[in-house]
Amino acid sequence: MTTDPWQYFTFADNGEPLQLDSGRSLGPVTLAYETHGSLNADRSNAILILHAFSGNSHVANHAHTGGRDDGPGWWEAMVGPGLGIDTDKYFVICSNILGSCCGSTGPGSPNPETGKPYGLDFPMVTIGDMVRAQKSLIDHLGISRLYAVIGGSVGGMQVLQWCVSYPEMVRTAIPLATTMRHSALCIAFNEVARQAIMADPKWRKGKYPDDDPPELGLAVARMVGHITYLSDKAMHRKFGRKLQEREDLSFRFESDFQVESYLNYQGTKFVRRFDANSLLYITKASDYFDLNNEKEATINRLEKAPIKFLVVSFTSDWLYPTYQSRELVQALKRNGCNVSFCEIHADCGHDAFLLPNKRLTTLIRGFLDGAKTA
Amino acid sequence: MTTDPWQYFTFADNGEPLQLDSGRSLGPVTLAYETHGSLNADRSNAILILHAFSGNSHVANHAHTGGRDDGPGWWEAMVGPGLGIDTDKYFVICSNILGSCCGSTGPGSPNPETGKPYGLDFPMVTIGDMVRAQKSLIDHLGISRLYAVIGGSVGGMQVLQWCVSYPEMVRTAIPLATTMRHSALCIAFNEVARQAIMADPKWRKGKYPDDDPPELGLAVARMVGHITYLSDKAMHRKFGRKLQEREDLSFRFESDFQVESYLNYQGTKFVRRFDANSLLYITKASDYFDLNNEKEATINRLEKAPIKFLVVSFTSDWLYPTYQSRELVQALKRNGCNVSFCEIHADCGHDAFLLPNKRLTTLIRGFLDGAKTA
Repeated sequence: MTTDPWQYFTFADNGEPLQLDSGRSLGPVTLAYETHGSLNADRSNAILILHAFSGNSHVANHAHTGGRDDGPGWWEAMVGPGLGIDTDKYFVICSNILGSCCGSTGPGSPNPETGKPYGLDFPMVTIGDMVRAQKSLIDHLGISRLYAVIGGSVGGMQVLQWCVSYPEMVRTAIPLATTMRHSALCIAFNEVARQAIMADPKWRKGKYPDDDPPELGLAVARMVGHITYLSDKAMHRKFGRKLQEREDLSFRFESDFQVESYLNYQGTKFVRRFDANSLLYITKASDYFDLNNEKEATINRLEKAPIKFLVVSFTSDWLYPTYQSRELVQALKRNGCNVSFCEIHADCGHDAFLLPNKRLTTLIRGFLDGAKTA
Repeated sequence: MTTDPWQYFTFADNGEPLQLDSGRSLGPVTLAYETHGSLNADRSNAILILHAFSGNSHVANHAHTGGRDDGPGWWEAMVGPGLGIDTDKYFVICSNILGSCCGSTGPGSPNPETGKPYGLDFPMVTIGDMVRAQKSLIDHLGISRLYAVIGGSVGGMQVLQWCVSYPEMVRTAIPLATTMRHSALCIAFNEVARQAIMADPKWRKGKYPDDDPPELGLAVARMVGHITYLSDKAMHRKFGRKLQEREDLSFRFESDFQVESYLNYQGTKFVRRFDANSLLYITKASDYFDLNNEKEATINRLEKAPIKFLVVSFTSDWLYPTYQSRELVQALKRNGCNVSFCEIHADCGHDAFLLPNKRLTTLIRGFLDGAKTA
């Protein structure tokens, strides 16, 4: 097993298109993925990390594991030798999700029928579809059971979907700062983000050229998202009413306050690294996510599943508040699952799961070590 | 004193332009206002109601007070004969705020220098400026002291500003669901709303024609606002994950969920009644609002002011949470003011102050009656 970063797995190799929850199929499908550490002889130490909405496969710098320096990853504080997810012990896999724009197939990929980007001809994908694609990757890597699936936010939804779809393939599961069904509030914020993009005339019903995307709409969408990742307290501490490089109010429509500059900067920065159509597809996938649907509560497929769960929420997360993690814990317990639950005190909002946090690191390390002897 | 609705008061009558906090001046200035009930002989029963960000002077239907049926007002449940603010007892005045678009002078009004709408040539106005204009109206009505100033949200900021600017003119003050300084979170949401408008090419740097406004940007701005007026719980109760006129998910970019349709409807409806530039000006005015500024804490001008305060917050209001009302109460008490404080249990979010609420009605009625005998 090589541990080279930025590898690609394409389903076309199998000749089988991916069957989607919508009834449509998609192929060829490519997943970009990266690995850290080494798979052991009996292939029992693999951990699949699932990234959040705008993430990618680059979970940590490969320089820490003897590879080339390819820059910091999005979970640098958690993944590496001796860290919470210890790459000296575990073989870590992280793949970019289906529908995204960081190497995996998404609306920006060429449609084999036209040779041009799919745009809105890309089929709607669900969290279930994302996980189905990942399952093919794990099969391809010759791993029959994952030691753990771990992820926060939309990544946490994938963790839960993995358990529901392939319970026999999951030994332990750590869903962080997430929910088993997307709330009206979350759908509402996602809808605003989508409308901001679709209101931009440069969006052109999804058929925009690479070099002229709907950047103003995408920036507004990101600003909305960014607010929801923070908390009132964190914003007060970080920005308060501090002015941005000025002594007094401008009495003009400029960025008077640091929080305004910060949001504008985040919006503009995002445009350079993310695709507007991917945002539309991934937000819709998370809005569709509901393991406790009245028609079919798929969470109940977990009845007596031999998976050990660690559910973690954060006190100031108002996007996926603790009560939603508690509902998840209750549903899992009702199904006779083995569940540990921890609410971590953190005042930095939903982003807490991504930020360095001793408590979270200790918790994850201990849980993973404990599951080994169990 | 006539009680005809929809009256206009124009400063030009005085020949004096309004001096603004920015150092600029503005004239002529017109305020649209409405009244209910009758001013008593000693002119001591006048209550000034201050409306929130997108409100207007039409606080209640005049049919209740013997006038013509001019449709329901924005505080229909609170203002009228025998209601919380009893028009049999009090003479109620409500004026559209400076910078708005419902009869009072704002960026959509004709600039006397050009004959065309001001657009961004309209000077930036503050909550202080809005109150300064209202003071001229109250002078014009021959009222030297208001029995009460009452308002929620941005209206509550005006209540506090009235007390600070003209303490001798205010007998009682009821700031509802508000703050003495706009938080980073609130500034952030306002900035997103502004950026959504300014990103719309139809905005044309504020110079859009009446019949072709930046409606998509304004709709997105309103959607953002609307989410912040509700609460997670209220949205769950009202919408949950209910689908909109369909049995199953569409797997397309349509409104699958009721909450999406609702927000889109609210956005579209708002476009028909509100001006995009007014939104820019009024959000900026509220962002600038800070009575506890480090340079000058104007709240301290209230030292021993003989005003009776009733401060009210609502448990699920996350835009102006209870802790901000408590900070206000502490600042008032530090200044030796007479303050009552009540946090009302309500799970409908910031909007709670506008919705029919027995507790709030009883509280306001009792406070107003009590102040009479005090």
